[in-house]
Amino acid sequence: MNYSLLYKESLFYNVIPFWEKNSLDTKFGGYFSCLDQKGEIYDTDKFIWLQGRQAWMFSYLYNNVEQKKDWLEIAKLGIDFLIDHGRDDTGNFYFSTTREGKPLVQPYNIFSDCFAAMAFGQYAKATGDKEIQDLAKNTYFNILDRRENPKGQYEKSTGNRPLKSFSLPMILSNLVLELEAVLPAEEVEKTIDFSVNEVMKVFLQKDNGLIYEFLNPDGTPNDSFEGRLINPGHGLEAMWFMIDIAVRSNDKDLIKKASETILKILNFGWDKKYGGIFYFLDVKGYPPQQLEWDQKLWWVHLEALVALSKAYLHTKNPKIWEWYEKVHQYTLNRFPDKENGEWFGYLNRQGEPYLTLKGGKWKGCFHVPRGLYQCWKNFEKIEQENLLK
Amino acid sequence: MNYSLLYKESLFYNVIPFWEKNSLDTKFGGYFSCLDQKGEIYDTDKFIWLQGRQAWMFSYLYNNVEQKKDWLEIAKLGIDFLIDHGRDDTGNFYFSTTREGKPLVQPYNIFSDCFAAMAFGQYAKATGDKEIQDLAKNTYFNILDRRENPKGQYEKSTGNRPLKSFSLPMILSNLVLELEAVLPAEEVEKTIDFSVNEVMKVFLQKDNGLIYEFLNPDGTPNDSFEGRLINPGHGLEAMWFMIDIAVRSNDKDLIKKASETILKILNFGWDKKYGGIFYFLDVKGYPPQQLEWDQKLWWVHLEALVALSKAYLHTKNPKIWEWYEKVHQYTLNRFPDKENGEWFGYLNRQGEPYLTLKGGKWKGCFHVPRGLYQCWKNFEKIEQENLLK
Repeated sequence: MNYSLLYKESLFYNVIPFWEKNSLDTKFGGYFSCLDQKGEIYDTDKFIWLQGRQAWMFSYLYNNVEQKKDWLEIAKLGIDFLIDHGRDDTGNFYFSTTREGKPLVQPYNIFSDCFAAMAFGQYAKATGDKEIQDLAKNTYFNILDRRENPKGQYEKSTGNRPLKSFSLPMILSNLVLELEAVLPAEEVEKTIDFSVNEVMKVFLQKDNGLIYEFLNPDGTPNDSFEGRLINPGHGLEAMWFMIDIAVRSNDKDLIKKASETILKILNFGWDKKYGGIFYFLDVKGYPPQQLEWDQKLWWVHLEALVALSKAYLHTKNPKIWEWYEKVHQYTLNRFPDKENGEWFGYLNRQGEPYLTLKGGKWKGCFHVPRGLYQCWKNFEKIEQENLLK
Repeated sequence: MNYSLLYKESLFYNVIPFWEKNSLDTKFGGYFSCLDQKGEIYDTDKFIWLQGRQAWMFSYLYNNVEQKKDWLEIAKLGIDFLIDHGRDDTGNFYFSTTREGKPLVQPYNIFSDCFAAMAFGQYAKATGDKEIQDLAKNTYFNILDRRENPKGQYEKSTGNRPLKSFSLPMILSNLVLELEAVLPAEEVEKTIDFSVNEVMKVFLQKDNGLIYEFLNPDGTPNDSFEGRLINPGHGLEAMWFMIDIAVRSNDKDLIKKASETILKILNFGWDKKYGGIFYFLDVKGYPPQQLEWDQKLWWVHLEALVALSKAYLHTKNPKIWEWYEKVHQYTLNRFPDKENGEWFGYLNRQGEPYLTLKGGKWKGCFHVPRGLYQCWKNFEKIEQENLLK
C-alpha cells in the first residue's frame, strides 16, 4: 500500500475542504467549530483553543505545503479574532467567547494561551509580521510566568495535595520548537532540556514504563484518582514530540527510549476485547473517575499513528510496525467519514460513533489534519528509504 | 407481584448491609464511598456530598423505619466528620477532604452545603440536639446567602451570558421540607412558593412540557449548549419533590401537572433503541457537550421509579402505570447486583455495566436506599388501596 498517498489524499480531499467550506465566520471573524456530521453549524460559540489550533493549522500548511493565498487568509481570520477578542486586560486568553467575540468563560485554562502562541508563531513565520512575532513571544513568556499557578483564582485545589501535571512540560516541548524562530536560542535549549527531563525522567515511570498524568512535587506517584490516571493518547503524543526533539539533536538514545515507551503505552492502553485505545485508565486497574474512560477518541488514535510511523521511520523496529498496522486498521476503518468529510470524533467502546459531530467544544480543525500531514511526511521518508516490503 | 415487599427486602437485605459492612471509617470518622463491585475500598478520599448524604440516609432510617442504635451511630460518624472537617472558616463546605479530613477541594460547590444541611436536619430530628438544629438552620441560611453567586471566586463565567440554574430551586424544594422542624414557618412557605413557581412555571416549558436546566434571567430559553440541555433524571426527581409538596397542601392541580410532566420527560428521554433513560439530551437534537450523554445511570432510573410510583398512587393514571412497568423492568433487570449487594451505577447505552464500582466520587449511600424506601412506601399505600389488579 502507498501510505503516504493515502494520507495526503485524505488530507486534501476529505479533511481540509471540510473546514474550508464549513468553518469560516466571514462576518465576525474566527471559525465555527460546532459542526454536525454534514458540516452544518449547530452552535456559534467560539472556543479559544480551537481558534488558535485552526489558525495554526492553516498557517502551517501555508509554510510547509504550499503558499496558497486562501490558506493564509483563513489563518488570518483566526489570528485577527484572537488579537481582537481573545485576551483579557492582562493578556491571558479566555476559554470561550460568543460568536461576536464577547468573552464567555474566563482565562482559567492555560492551554488557550499555548494554542494562541503556536498560532502566532506559525503565522508570523508565514508573513514575517514583527508584531505577531512579539505577540507569540510575549504569550510564551506569559505562559511561563503562569506555570506555577496556571488556573489562578479558579484553582479549586486547597494545596494540601500539591500535584504536578504532565500536560505543561509536554506541551512546552512542542511549543518551544514551534516558536524557535522568535525565542532566544538559550531559552529554547533550556526549555527543551527541562521538558525532556520532566517527560522522560520524571513522568515516565521506571518500573512499568508508563507516563503518569500527575505526580507528587518530588516526582513520586500519588495514590489518588489523579495520581493513578493514565491517558494513553497524551503519552503517545508526547513521544512523537520527544522524537522530533531527538531528531533535531541526533539523540539516538532518546529515540529508542521514546519508541519503547510507545510500545509500553499501547500494550497497557489497548482494549483487548473490542480493539482501539482507551481514553483513560487507572494504573492499578481501579475504576477511573472519568465516565468516558472506555471511549475511543479520534485524537488518541491519530497521535498513535503519528508516534508509530515516526518511531518506525527512525528505528525500523518490527514490533513498532506490527502495532502500526494494528492501529491503522482499527482507526482507518472506523473514524473517517468518507461521505461527508472529516472524521468522527467519538466512538463508544464497541467502535461505533455515539456522537456524530465533526466539531464541538473540544474537536476542531487540528488533530485530524495535523495527524494526516505527519503520517504523510513520515511515510514519504519511509517509502523513499524502501523500508516497507 | 408484591412490589412493596420487593423494595423493602431489597433495601434491608441487599443495600443497607452493603454500606454497614463496607463504608464505615471507624478510625478517622465519616464514610468511605469509593467501593468496588465487592465492596472493597479502592480510594479513601472523602467527598462532602456523599458524607452528608449517607449521614442523612441513616438518620432518616432511624426516624422513619426503626430507632436502631446502630443506625444512629452510623449517622453520627458522618455528622461528626462534617462538623470537625467539613467546613472552612466562613462556614462553607469543602467539596472533598483526605481520609483524615484535611481539605482537598475548596467550597466551589453549594450542593455540599445542601446535603450537609439535610443531614443535620434529619440527625437533629433523631437526637433533639439543639446545636445540630442550629447548624442545620445556619447552613440553610448560608446557602440562601450564597445563591446568587454559589461558586464564588471559582465562577469561570464572565457574566456576559448570565443563566439561571434549575438545580437550586429544585433542591430547595426538597431541603425546605427536610428542615421544616427547624425553620420559621413563614420561611418554609416562602421558599416552597418560590421553588414551586420556579420549577413549574419558569423552568417547565409550556410548549414542549420539558424542564430546561438553564434559562436566561427573564425565563426565556437560551440557544447554547447549557441552554439546550435536558437532564431527564433531574426533571423526574423534581417532579416527586413537587408531588410531596402538593400532598402536603392537598394541591390536586400540582399533582396533575407534575404527573403530566413525568410522562413528557419520559417520552423525550427514553432510548427507543436500547431502552433506559438517557443521561443528557440536547432539546434540539444537537450533539450534547457531555461525552456521557447516552449512558444509563442508576440514580436517573431510581428517581423515575419513585416519581412514577408516587404519581400513580395519587392519580391512578393508567399511562403512568404503563411507564412504571416499563421502567421497572428495565431497571430491576440491570442495575441490582444480587451477588455482591447494592446496584451498579453506570451502564453503557446498551445496558451493560462499564464501571462496576458501587461507589465513587459521585455515587454513595443515597439514591439507591432512598429510592427503595420511597418505592416501598408508595407501594404500601398503593397496595392498601388495592389499586393494582
